[in-house]
Amino acid sequence: MADDQRGTIGTSPPRTDGLAKVTGSASYARHLRVPGMVHTALVRSDRPHARVLAIKCDAASRAPGVVAVVTAADLRRVVRHLHHGPAFRDQPILAAEKVRHVGEPVAAIVAETPAAAHAALPMVEVVYEDLPGVFDPVEAMQPGAPLVHERVEPAGSFADLRGLEPAAGTNVCLHFRLRRGDVQAGLRSVDVIVEEAFTTPATQHLPMEPHATLAIPGADGRLIIWSSTQSPSFVRSELAYLLGLPEHAVDVRVPYLGGGYGAKLYVKLEAIAAALALLIRRPVAVHNALEDLFYTLNRHATRTVIRSGVTRDGRLMARQVQVYWDTGAYADIGPRICQKSGYTATGPYRIPHVSIDSYCVYTHHPPAGAFRGFGIPQLVWAYESHTDTLARRLALDPLEFRRRNLLRSGDPQATGTVMQHAGFVEVLDAVAQRLPFARSRSGHVARGVGMAVGMKAVLTPSTSLATVHMYGDGSVGVAAGTVEMGQGAETVLGQIVATELGVPLHHVRVLHPDTDVTPFDTLTAGSRSTFHMGNAVRRAAEDVRLQLLDRATRLLEAPLDVLAVEDGGVVSREGPRRALTFREIMERTFGQGGTLVGRGEHRGHAKHLDPATGQSDQVTAFWFAGAAAAEVEVDTGTGEVRVPRLVCAADVGKALHPRLVEGQIRGAAVMQLSQTLFEAVATQDGQLLNPNLIDYKALTTAEAPERLEAVIVEVPHPDGPYGAKGVGETGVFAVAPAVANAIANATGGRPRDLPLTPERILQSIREADA
Amino acid sequence: MADDQRGTIGTSPPRTDGLAKVTGSASYARHLRVPGMVHTALVRSDRPHARVLAIKCDAASRAPGVVAVVTAADLRRVVRHLHHGPAFRDQPILAAEKVRHVGEPVAAIVAETPAAAHAALPMVEVVYEDLPGVFDPVEAMQPGAPLVHERVEPAGSFADLRGLEPAAGTNVCLHFRLRRGDVQAGLRSVDVIVEEAFTTPATQHLPMEPHATLAIPGADGRLIIWSSTQSPSFVRSELAYLLGLPEHAVDVRVPYLGGGYGAKLYVKLEAIAAALALLIRRPVAVHNALEDLFYTLNRHATRTVIRSGVTRDGRLMARQVQVYWDTGAYADIGPRICQKSGYTATGPYRIPHVSIDSYCVYTHHPPAGAFRGFGIPQLVWAYESHTDTLARRLALDPLEFRRRNLLRSGDPQATGTVMQHAGFVEVLDAVAQRLPFARSRSGHVARGVGMAVGMKAVLTPSTSLATVHMYGDGSVGVAAGTVEMGQGAETVLGQIVATELGVPLHHVRVLHPDTDVTPFDTLTAGSRSTFHMGNAVRRAAEDVRLQLLDRATRLLEAPLDVLAVEDGGVVSREGPRRALTFREIMERTFGQGGTLVGRGEHRGHAKHLDPATGQSDQVTAFWFAGAAAAEVEVDTGTGEVRVPRLVCAADVGKALHPRLVEGQIRGAAVMQLSQTLFEAVATQDGQLLNPNLIDYKALTTAEAPERLEAVIVEVPHPDGPYGAKGVGETGVFAVAPAVANAIANATGGRPRDLPLTPERILQSIREADA
Repeated sequence: MADDQRGTIGTSPPRTDGLAKVTGSASYARHLRVPGMVHTALVRSDRPHARVLAIKCDAASRAPGVVAVVTAADLRRVVRHLHHGPAFRDQPILAAEKVRHVGEPVAAIVAETPAAAHAALPMVEVVYEDLPGVFDPVEAMQPGAPLVHERVEPAGSFADLRGLEPAAGTNVCLHFRLRRGDVQAGLRSVDVIVEEAFTTPATQHLPMEPHATLAIPGADGRLIIWSSTQSPSFVRSELAYLLGLPEHAVDVRVPYLGGGYGAKLYVKLEAIAAALALLIRRPVAVHNALEDLFYTLNRHATRTVIRSGVTRDGRLMARQVQVYWDTGAYADIGPRICQKSGYTATGPYRIPHVSIDSYCVYTHHPPAGAFRGFGIPQLVWAYESHTDTLARRLALDPLEFRRRNLLRSGDPQATGTVMQHAGFVEVLDAVAQRLPFARSRSGHVARGVGMAVGMKAVLTPSTSLATVHMYGDGSVGVAAGTVEMGQGAETVLGQIVATELGVPLHHVRVLHPDTDVTPFDTLTAGSRSTFHMGNAVRRAAEDVRLQLLDRATRLLEAPLDVLAVEDGGVVSREGPRRALTFREIMERTFGQGGTLVGRGEHRGHAKHLDPATGQSDQVTAFWFAGAAAAEVEVDTGTGEVRVPRLVCAADVGKALHPRLVEGQIRGAAVMQLSQTLFEAVATQDGQLLNPNLIDYKALTTAEAPERLEAVIVEVPHPDGPYGAKGVGETGVFAVAPAVANAIANATGGRPRDLPLTPERILQSIREADA
Repeated sequence: MADDQRGTIGTSPPRTDGLAKVTGSASYARHLRVPGMVHTALVRSDRPHARVLAIKCDAASRAPGVVAVVTAADLRRVVRHLHHGPAFRDQPILAAEKVRHVGEPVAAIVAETPAAAHAALPMVEVVYEDLPGVFDPVEAMQPGAPLVHERVEPAGSFADLRGLEPAAGTNVCLHFRLRRGDVQAGLRSVDVIVEEAFTTPATQHLPMEPHATLAIPGADGRLIIWSSTQSPSFVRSELAYLLGLPEHAVDVRVPYLGGGYGAKLYVKLEAIAAALALLIRRPVAVHNALEDLFYTLNRHATRTVIRSGVTRDGRLMARQVQVYWDTGAYADIGPRICQKSGYTATGPYRIPHVSIDSYCVYTHHPPAGAFRGFGIPQLVWAYESHTDTLARRLALDPLEFRRRNLLRSGDPQATGTVMQHAGFVEVLDAVAQRLPFARSRSGHVARGVGMAVGMKAVLTPSTSLATVHMYGDGSVGVAAGTVEMGQGAETVLGQIVATELGVPLHHVRVLHPDTDVTPFDTLTAGSRSTFHMGNAVRRAAEDVRLQLLDRATRLLEAPLDVLAVEDGGVVSREGPRRALTFREIMERTFGQGGTLVGRGEHRGHAKHLDPATGQSDQVTAFWFAGAAAAEVEVDTGTGEVRVPRLVCAADVGKALHPRLVEGQIRGAAVMQLSQTLFEAVATQDGQLLNPNLIDYKALTTAEAPERLEAVIVEVPHPDGPYGAKGVGETGVFAVAPAVANAIANATGGRPRDLPLTPERILQSIREADA
């Protein structure tokens, strides 16, 4: 059997979930039906900030098919805590005294059918007393701004966020500081100082499957939670906390996910579904519709002020950055984004004097949280647009200017962590070679090429555990908490186990997460699974392999060092050929049947990060490097932008399944191009103006690049499985500034606000001409 | 917290499944409903032996609601093998060319509702050519008897049964031989020789829940099988064999069972449900009704001829035994019963010269297989009735006669295996002290007391594996393949883990078997789970404990030998008191959340058993000892028997949950008393005359003993967890002969056929008087 038929790592076998998905037999959380289940419609606030004076449920309670109408007061009968959250416990399951954003759930209508639940929505009357709101993070930081929270409860979930709760009386829920060198001295020493401000709007993840949870109550207050979550381990422990149950009483199971992108992390619909199931004693389904996504979680709108000092010969000497993150009414994971992205605001550059202030700020918008890239695209947008501005001011070739300043192995990054095994130069060169700088004009169409490069730290610390089970016939089951959400993790983890055990991929089955028996995994996000879970399942498979070899040494009477796994068995590589199939080893070990259980673990380690300076000897397990080059055509009459060619390169360490890696890079590039050109959640005084796919414009195939190239760069990481890092996000880093830099190259105009609408392009051209 | 509140071993906390069961929320396989599921009715043969010439399905196929009518020919489209079986693969999923017993499934009608499926049953016409049948095992052994099978396929499931397939041309599917000493010389040396013959009829297990299976097809030919099985690991591997799938593609899950008693071992409805699900591509439920139990599996009818030689002073010197087991048309586990029970036909006695022939014989009756006691009650019935006959012939006190011959530590048992750690004397003394020999008469009512003692080897070799998962909050999940079927295994395994980890029982959850993630376990039967799985979960918990202590040594900077688990944490027992909760250890190990996975294994070892002599250095992991004493009242006018008092003693090694142990002893005693007095599957020419609870008489509370005493005897076994052995069957061993011996004591009559109907009692009195 050839390696690609076996699915050995480095080959691109068909996805193991492919057949189920193309035949429609793959199961998603919203497909699940169980006898007696009831359905839920959530009454959502239409006010951005108001006191809840009364919730009148009587009419709805009497509506046909309605089982119950539930408010926060009712929930208190079954929950021990009302507030949850991964960073701080600031978000109520249902709004209690106040609502803090439009779309916040205020009451839940449970009915025999979805239609009956939704029909009763208008019958619930909520009496509000409106309160003044605040909708801009910079305004929210001003003294006297309306306070979103009087007080925030600490959360124990993440060690690195403990003790960082905001003081009372401020909307700043986290202020991350980085100080390195002497930025004032640095600025005094340079020839040129440039300051610019960039913004990004809130955007929406738009997974094909909106959130869905089914909570099934069992005996003794136990619960089975089927949910579309990227973080089953977190959901279990957070529900156990909320409900006052031991973790063994909450079993979180995850079928396939129809896309995640960060929208399905931490507790979303799980808490309300679980509480309703305990109240009503029936299985309760809670499903989001598309519109609900916009009220549940969006990407942070940001404002970044960046000020850099360079020498005339193009050396970056000093940088000051202020980033303002609009995290909405509830922090979600915003504080961590503010911190983890904050320390990369220098970009992948050597800059001796740095000062970064990154502010995560509450407003009365819907919550913002993780979104493919975890804040990095917003920062790269700013610092890589800014890099081209600097190059232009210095009249340097932007590629050359970048190369002169890029971090190389051994250089300290802004946190002080020494940079190693990160291919910034390699990814930049890869895109530049394929799409060199160029500029041309024909009539009112200006053409140009631009590039950008970005960096990201992998979420650290984080932990993945796995078990590998070899069954009696030598086939294999893998219990890993990684969620298959389209990225192909099931296939790649299967490849790793197949490779380690010397069996074909179709003898390996990667099980769906089920927290009763799937060991802990931090989450499926942040491009961390191939590295962390890949290492964990590799070690678990190795554990099984060693058990097989150990038994084979006795059964074959051969020393360990001449034995190897191969073709579903153990063979002796020296002397007369002797072999045992795994089935034979199992039978001779256990008499009949049998199971070998292997355990594996990987922890991404970080060292102390000084909160005063943001300095750390090891801030991350490893770094991602991504670059993009874009060719644009700008209609200088209308401001319309086309991107006929987009090249994205990602340093993935080692491509375990090259076709999936290319798919990740392409998918990320198109997703980011959509946000570059089109996407923005439009708001006015806290109201959402376009929470639907008619008014919220996203890229379609008509606007996709004619040539979309994914370039795999492999700078292996010694700690990664076979050198692999990860790739889910790398393709999003650099697209927006590459496009903007191409526009600037073509037109001379410098747009600084996303998305790059025709109006803004025309405005940037007018400013350049002025 | 007191030990009994914690549920420490040796105390009797409330059953962990108690609340779910008394509130009706416990789930059983027949409760399961999934969208799209279809229901099945099985067309069963009304002939005991016939060639199937044609199956006319057209009319039934067109009946309202019918989805498909399926025969063996259709099954061949999805199965690789049609025949299954734990000993030999002799049983087709649906009858192919021939039917071999009344009630054998010939076709399956699948319909949208159970009613539609059953309504179509009369529309299927099967054209048979009747063949001569054989219905008695002794007749079936004669030359020229109709052959039940021309040929039998070997089965690979149990190493100890491999290579024992019957030769072509015989109905004897296993002939077990034991030869020890020189039985002819032994018989020549004695003063008294007595020969008797005893019989037992077929009986029915009568679990409250008849068999139920739901097979759910997934993508790629995968299957989830929810089933009422006592042997999920076996079902998985056997279905994988039948369907030609890797084991990872067959996930067998078991909810609670409403009783097992051996009726739910190996493949019952699972193969037909699985094959139908693959054919129809919808979830398929197959449920047995009460009547179907009688056609699926019964207890072996037996005939035992026993001949013993004793010296005048009461020393047993020689014994010859022939046992004939009517295993019906398919061997099921009959050959193993024939073998494992066969070698105990000497009873728990020292007999230097022994010859045993145990014949497992095919007939055209429904299959017979495992039934609480695994053949032992049939043998004890014979040898302990016989013991009293011998004592009477020698005019010895039956207790004294037994005591003089009982096996003691160091004596070789008939197989040559040295007897150790078995409390035969202790259990006998326990019942004799409580209910001493007595006899009286008032009018036509004769009263007497009788006793008996029996032995059983635990199923050996067999294997149990388990994993114990400690979750982030220190609560615990136990993945064990043991099925909770009323015996309380969930509670006892939970107690063991709670004890080993120093947590209260309610912090431990024992998960239901799910072969994807539950490691291999041979089966839940034969009173083996407390010993085998108890050891496995104890070791798995110990593995977790050692991981906790190892981490605590570093966190507390204390040596391992001063640390202990206690109250959900690790404490230092020397120096200043320092402690860490498990949650703290997990958080400091994993940063957040986390899981510790412990592994445990126990194999019951046996040594080679010589097929020519039945001799083995170690034939079993350990022995069970059980005794009973019964007080009876016989109406010598009508033959009616009452049992006002029954005392049963069981050597359980160590009672881990005394209340459950007592419940097991009582339940077994009553079940056996029912078979002693009432139960028999009545047949005529292969037809069943009473497959229902109107005509098949079982004991009710009206006939239960007024005083039913369970006596726990503890002769600890060094290999058992805390010394424990097991108890599920021990209470059944000795009831029937104790009752018969009491009757003989009261009336002088010796009944030798079960059940002890009034007619037979009167006949025995008449024979005694003659």
